[in-house]
Amino acid sequence: MKKTADICLSPDLLHLFNLKDKIVVVTDVFRATSVMCTALNNGIVEIIPISNLSQLNEFNSSDYIIAAERDGKIVEGYKYGNSPLNYHENKSINGKKLVLTTTNGTRAINLSKKDANEVIIASFLNITAVSNYLYNKQNDVIILCSGWKGQVSLEDTLYAGFLLEKLINIGFKSESDSSFLSRQLVKDSKSNLIKFALQSSHKKRTENLGIDRDLKFCLQLDIYNNVPFLKQNSIVL
Amino acid sequence: MKKTADICLSPDLLHLFNLKDKIVVVTDVFRATSVMCTALNNGIVEIIPISNLSQLNEFNSSDYIIAAERDGKIVEGYKYGNSPLNYHENKSINGKKLVLTTTNGTRAINLSKKDANEVIIASFLNITAVSNYLYNKQNDVIILCSGWKGQVSLEDTLYAGFLLEKLINIGFKSESDSSFLSRQLVKDSKSNLIKFALQSSHKKRTENLGIDRDLKFCLQLDIYNNVPFLKQNSIVL
Repeated sequence: MKKTADICLSPDLLHLFNLKDKIVVVTDVFRATSVMCTALNNGIVEIIPISNLSQLNEFNSSDYIIAAERDGKIVEGYKYGNSPLNYHENKSINGKKLVLTTTNGTRAINLSKKDANEVIIASFLNITAVSNYLYNKQNDVIILCSGWKGQVSLEDTLYAGFLLEKLINIGFKSESDSSFLSRQLVKDSKSNLIKFALQSSHKKRTENLGIDRDLKFCLQLDIYNNVPFLKQNSIVL
Repeated sequence: MKKTADICLSPDLLHLFNLKDKIVVVTDVFRATSVMCTALNNGIVEIIPISNLSQLNEFNSSDYIIAAERDGKIVEGYKYGNSPLNYHENKSINGKKLVLTTTNGTRAINLSKKDANEVIIASFLNITAVSNYLYNKQNDVIILCSGWKGQVSLEDTLYAGFLLEKLINIGFKSESDSSFLSRQLVKDSKSNLIKFALQSSHKKRTENLGIDRDLKFCLQLDIYNNVPFLKQNSIVL
């Protein structure tokens, strides 16, 4: 029997899915899961995803890099936020642990870990690695789009479409209307992925924050060849 | 200031929207809102939308036509279900009241009536009438897609895209990613609306029920020129 892959367009729809025995692929293209892939590939040894800002007080800044983002911005008082460029080729992070809280991505991760067989972290930066990883597993797959405060986001839906195309090509079945919608976006974006994805409301929302370089960084394909996964309460490689 | 129009892809996302002072446009293309438009244009004087089957017992079948659908089928024991062809050119329904419960559409209506300024009923069958109606109002608009048991459906998202295109053409602003997604579908379906819409999982799900004629009926444009609306607990013209 074929393995199945489906897409959950928002964490607020996750209750509609039975996650038992499934691998949940969490994506938050702009920017949390792109940051996670980048940080772990640049020397961070472990990421602890936190949903609430108040929990950050439990961590000592001499032991951890503490990163906090809300509404696209670094939270006041913190040095690190949700920019992959904070971590990319930054030698000072080598060997350290990262505590990270973001508007959407960390919430999606913490919601899925309750019932899923496994939770993995996906972005354009490691899309082929994710597809290969799922090929070698026996489990059905739910791609969870982190969205924006519960609302569906263009970039995550688009990413899910790209990943579903890959999964269908290696034998997965994917028949829901949400899957169809996301795969239509892949066709629509064929001529220019970056231009298409930057029509996202995330870009408009963050226009004054000067994070265009971040968004373009997040739209690179396959610069990393591994798949971060959730191990107890931490994300590791 | 421009009026705004947005799309809520599923009743399970409705909590994300502030409905105060807004007109909620409920659509369930396959088939509840198409049925409502058809019934009211063929002599039904009032429709009472019911969420639960158990509430049907409150209505006497000598006073009302009682129609019940679940999972695409007429509920056992009832003569009428969720087929527009039950009502189209059926003289025996003239002047009667209809009590209707369906899998998705009646739930969406009953969810929106709590907070919205007004709830109206929309389908391809009356799309231009709906657009004209909204043009003449001062309110912002939320198009609520009924979906399938909380899941996003292709046909409702596609309908919302068509309606949003019309609303944008008459001066509304619509900037969310969900709006963008739905309007992409309009482009994708340009060459053949019926063929495109029948890729819906609703078609696959109901393939053995012989309702293909229903689905094609529901994809006709502008055969009715009026807008059903919710008045207290009933839908009327």
